[in-house]
Amino acid sequence: MEAALMLLCDIGNTSYHFYDGNADYKRSVNDFDPAVITDDVYYISVNPNLVSLLEGLTNWKDLSEHIVWDEYYETMGIDRVVACEAVEEGVIIDAGSAVTVDIVRDGLFQGGFIYPGVQAMQGAYLDISARLSYSFNFELDLDRMPKNSPDAISYGYLRTLYSEVKRHTGPYYITGGDAELFSRIFPMATVERHLIFRGMQKIMSRVPQC
Amino acid sequence: MEAALMLLCDIGNTSYHFYDGNADYKRSVNDFDPAVITDDVYYISVNPNLVSLLEGLTNWKDLSEHIVWDEYYETMGIDRVVACEAVEEGVIIDAGSAVTVDIVRDGLFQGGFIYPGVQAMQGAYLDISARLSYSFNFELDLDRMPKNSPDAISYGYLRTLYSEVKRHTGPYYITGGDAELFSRIFPMATVERHLIFRGMQKIMSRVPQC
Repeated sequence: MEAALMLLCDIGNTSYHFYDGNADYKRSVNDFDPAVITDDVYYISVNPNLVSLLEGLTNWKDLSEHIVWDEYYETMGIDRVVACEAVEEGVIIDAGSAVTVDIVRDGLFQGGFIYPGVQAMQGAYLDISARLSYSFNFELDLDRMPKNSPDAISYGYLRTLYSEVKRHTGPYYITGGDAELFSRIFPMATVERHLIFRGMQKIMSRVPQC
Repeated sequence: MEAALMLLCDIGNTSYHFYDGNADYKRSVNDFDPAVITDDVYYISVNPNLVSLLEGLTNWKDLSEHIVWDEYYETMGIDRVVACEAVEEGVIIDAGSAVTVDIVRDGLFQGGFIYPGVQAMQGAYLDISARLSYSFNFELDLDRMPKNSPDAISYGYLRTLYSEVKRHTGPYYITGGDAELFSRIFPMATVERHLIFRGMQKIMSRVPQC
């Protein structure tokens, strides 16, 4: 029964993402009150606005306290850190409002980079000119130099990212809200919807009181 | 004397960029009146707002009429086309409000792509989070995976572009307002400040009435 009483939660800027060991579900940051949950919740959060609220709830336990931060860097997003904890070897692509790419070798974080997500990048092209306001084509042929505007934009966004990712040896994992979308560009990557929850579970397995 | 009486002009969204065969200078689109010039001006323009004004001036001659468009595509910016005309072989990086990368082989356009310029890309990162609001580090070590936020952003912007550009065989040419800045990332590229004017001259050399 214990597993059913323990919740994991990955908190972003817009939502609480819960995982009960079987199913996952989201609640909006704007209208969800974390105090309604009485079970233990092990969480990570990148949301600066919820810090004091969550610190006041004794059953909400911040897993970031159990990270060995020496292996990472101070301002690195906790979601990236926890995804890295889930993996022993390879490249992790987390496609959300940002696309982060992190490299892990032999269980150790080697560094990573941050690329704009779909919405932010579309804004960047629109900012240059209304003529560059296209939706990205995720069915793009990556091996053909574009000869039309929508593909010239899509290639600029997706092929540049792909060319850099492919320089690094796999295996490749892809997670985040846009994982399915980006998996069309990265067919060699395994979609791991629950990668962050797997990382959280791995951290908990190391901590006696969890 | 004839060279001194003939002006070239590359018109963007914000400025007229003149070249008299020796020096180049810019005038703002907002307060410059093209009618004050009485010499012949051979121009290209990406500015939709100036079309009727310039068509009414008989000494302003639009060079886009002399492009063999079959080799390019309909919505391709005339500045990209003319830069391609200047080159027989290689990769052209035009770094301005957008960064365009075009491939020419044996004098023929092979395709190209469009990537955000510095300002638009900075806006994209800021749009994701105020925590990602850094200036790009053009002195970045491209061979080291980042372990801090400013480098993670700079690498995301610049290394992805570099990795794609390097897949293509040179020579590499770099032009546009940010050519010097980007040449730090592309040390193998030749900075060609007047590449577009060279392309315009080449087109004129093919047209009897020029």
